[in-house]
Amino acid sequence: MPRLPTAFSVTFQGTQRGRKRPMKKVYAVDLLNRTSSGMRVELYGWVKTRRRHNHVVFLDICDSTGTVQSVVDETNKELFELAKRINQETAVKVAGILTETGRPNPPKEIRVREIKIVGVATINVSPYPRSDIDILDPKLQKQLLDKRHFYLRNEKIAAILKFRHVLTRIVHQWFHENGFIEIHAPVLTPTPLYDDRSAMALKVHGQDVFLTQCVGFYLEQAVHAFEKIYNIGPSFRAEESRSKRHLMEYWHIKAELAFVDFEDMVATVERFIQDVSKQSIHEGRELAHIIGTEMCDDGLKIPFLRIGYDEAVEWLKAQGSDMEFGKSLGSNDESLLSSRFGNTPFWVVGIPRSIEPFPYVIDSADPRRTKTADLIASRGFGELLGIAEKIHVLSMLDERLTEKGKAGDTRYEWVRELRQYGCVPHGGFGMGLERFIRWLLQIPHVRDTIPFHRAFGRRIDP
Amino acid sequence: MPRLPTAFSVTFQGTQRGRKRPMKKVYAVDLLNRTSSGMRVELYGWVKTRRRHNHVVFLDICDSTGTVQSVVDETNKELFELAKRINQETAVKVAGILTETGRPNPPKEIRVREIKIVGVATINVSPYPRSDIDILDPKLQKQLLDKRHFYLRNEKIAAILKFRHVLTRIVHQWFHENGFIEIHAPVLTPTPLYDDRSAMALKVHGQDVFLTQCVGFYLEQAVHAFEKIYNIGPSFRAEESRSKRHLMEYWHIKAELAFVDFEDMVATVERFIQDVSKQSIHEGRELAHIIGTEMCDDGLKIPFLRIGYDEAVEWLKAQGSDMEFGKSLGSNDESLLSSRFGNTPFWVVGIPRSIEPFPYVIDSADPRRTKTADLIASRGFGELLGIAEKIHVLSMLDERLTEKGKAGDTRYEWVRELRQYGCVPHGGFGMGLERFIRWLLQIPHVRDTIPFHRAFGRRIDP
Repeated sequence: MPRLPTAFSVTFQGTQRGRKRPMKKVYAVDLLNRTSSGMRVELYGWVKTRRRHNHVVFLDICDSTGTVQSVVDETNKELFELAKRINQETAVKVAGILTETGRPNPPKEIRVREIKIVGVATINVSPYPRSDIDILDPKLQKQLLDKRHFYLRNEKIAAILKFRHVLTRIVHQWFHENGFIEIHAPVLTPTPLYDDRSAMALKVHGQDVFLTQCVGFYLEQAVHAFEKIYNIGPSFRAEESRSKRHLMEYWHIKAELAFVDFEDMVATVERFIQDVSKQSIHEGRELAHIIGTEMCDDGLKIPFLRIGYDEAVEWLKAQGSDMEFGKSLGSNDESLLSSRFGNTPFWVVGIPRSIEPFPYVIDSADPRRTKTADLIASRGFGELLGIAEKIHVLSMLDERLTEKGKAGDTRYEWVRELRQYGCVPHGGFGMGLERFIRWLLQIPHVRDTIPFHRAFGRRIDP
Repeated sequence: MPRLPTAFSVTFQGTQRGRKRPMKKVYAVDLLNRTSSGMRVELYGWVKTRRRHNHVVFLDICDSTGTVQSVVDETNKELFELAKRINQETAVKVAGILTETGRPNPPKEIRVREIKIVGVATINVSPYPRSDIDILDPKLQKQLLDKRHFYLRNEKIAAILKFRHVLTRIVHQWFHENGFIEIHAPVLTPTPLYDDRSAMALKVHGQDVFLTQCVGFYLEQAVHAFEKIYNIGPSFRAEESRSKRHLMEYWHIKAELAFVDFEDMVATVERFIQDVSKQSIHEGRELAHIIGTEMCDDGLKIPFLRIGYDEAVEWLKAQGSDMEFGKSLGSNDESLLSSRFGNTPFWVVGIPRSIEPFPYVIDSADPRRTKTADLIASRGFGELLGIAEKIHVLSMLDERLTEKGKAGDTRYEWVRELRQYGCVPHGGFGMGLERFIRWLLQIPHVRDTIPFHRAFGRRIDP
């Protein structure tokens, strides 16, 4: 402890320190893998199961790293009585001797000498969150969502969220290694990207503002300073869509590059998907095993196939779809196309200008279409991400603003200003983190890939 | 390119690929450091300065990595005329021969053979964003904020934001290396932490919800699954505070740990500050030099001093402050204390229960106080972060809910439920990323540490 300046005249009671030892020193995994038998050990955790066999009570004590069997016999009557009636999910400290069982499973157990109740479990949550339940069972969904704060303790749900953490880290790492700067764009914005309707609105100091639908406008300004940037953060869309790949609040991976064209964007994204898939399969295999899934390796083979939007429409019509030019591909259309392409993601290129936002470049070879592409996941998981080459010439931007009924809307004046101040060809891509997780882990619904989901039409609770 | 499935009957015009070569291949730094003289080179960038000396025009072409002098002589009349009248900030491609100047500064230049205008600069932004301006000059603040989208191109502003990127990465890395899982808690929440007044509200499907003020409630649930977690994301407070360390929207570093007490939290945070300071000083020194500042190394010496809240109040009163028990420390109070402690951050421990939120543990040794502490930065930069040990016993939580007038408020029922289901001693800390940057870089105002700032009372634009 540094000495206090002598000019200080009062006594500092607050400077006295307590013990230095952390409260919890060892985890289940430490006892299972790194502790010798015969040692006196203690473990903080939760009572996962309690079984009684005549004169012995078995308590499985778990923490975030694993489960350790703990055995209480009748030697200490009081301890035995406590063990007999301890509730599932009670938080405890158990202390005792780590002992070989002589059996393969479990190879070690704690012969318990002391149990301390740390936190009681007085309510009943059914099914028990730490039990081996089918987390995707439709009959369980209401309970699993209503009590999400407890079901985070489920091993499979926790494994999905650990994978989310792993994937997020790999994505950050990829951007870092490829020279991108992370730019934290604001959530509160006066400038909706698509339309005011699907943007979530609020009043701030009497001003109408929105929660960001997409940070594209901010990134295209910043890319003129940094050239390669990205942002991972929450994004909000009140789209009336109850599909398996829509959330009202989701985490959006956005990147923007200066001096690129459409082909540069395609190449960048293909490399991104390939590299991140490879690393996340490597790091996520064990978690996938816990979840009971296999990781999707379809992103490893690049380049991905491409199909023109027009051709996709024609082909889908021939298959009996009601798809037509100027509509967005529906989930069924994407699945139909996907089943034809086999296990590869594929690009749908040249989305019509009528359904794309105004900043995207019109294809001079076919002015009905934009220089955009959507990447559709393999195996029917639907749209993963979109890329767009952005307009850098003012007259073209103004034409598109007019077309979208936004001419004269002063909220876009700063977007126009960019095109008057050394604006360069630039482009971006955007992907919902949850869609990426869903595809890689082959999980049916995005709601299971985020800790607490918010969906259109569902009460936010909690 | 993978072959298409033969069952596919239409022609895929969209599968044709363009060139593979990226549009921009080299950056200024490549030409300056990694390219031999005599090579034909091309550079995409912006015209930073134009100078004419008789029969020669000098154009300094910059990009995000540096500046390359480019020389145009009268050999090609058309080219010379173009160079003579090219506007500052015009985006260009210049091509020519990289040549030794024979002088130390610059050692190389491009003898230009071709200039292509990529993006015009037709508006005037004054002072010129890429010029060497004093970004902290109060007289410039209005212009720098109103046209923030252009002033991101300023080298010093860009360096601050690059440092933000570096620091964010180091913080993620620290949590990863110390076994923390990143949990993305929601922005939209029905549960305000402090009070409904300073929370930013909106209606979603007719429901009153808030933008998160603090993700603590979500993390304390999740920590019962993962034990060590963190979250870096946006947080919102409509506090009527126009200080140099408040933003209405800021990025909040939050961490939560299970099975910890107050002393564990203090030790964890001290190690966090020390490790992250050390690494960011190492990686940020060059950026600090560009900004014209020196990095603060006061976080390297741990443990930090402590002062009890009561003693701080008494001492401040003796110095003439109007501080009294039950008030939060004001900026002036913090500065006064800071000046006494010298160049070290210090803890103010035991903040009164009357001014702390309900989930924080009451100090049994002095029930007027909580088991909390605020870390005050050195050199008058004020509060950096707060730590708190959280209540894990229901009766204590209920007592505090009643005390805060929240008893029976069903929005907190899930917070009560946690205390009935194996709740363990846990604690957290939270720090505004912007305050950390401000202190480390010794920048007066947090607004300069974020790409686009939102402040209470200021119009959001854009």
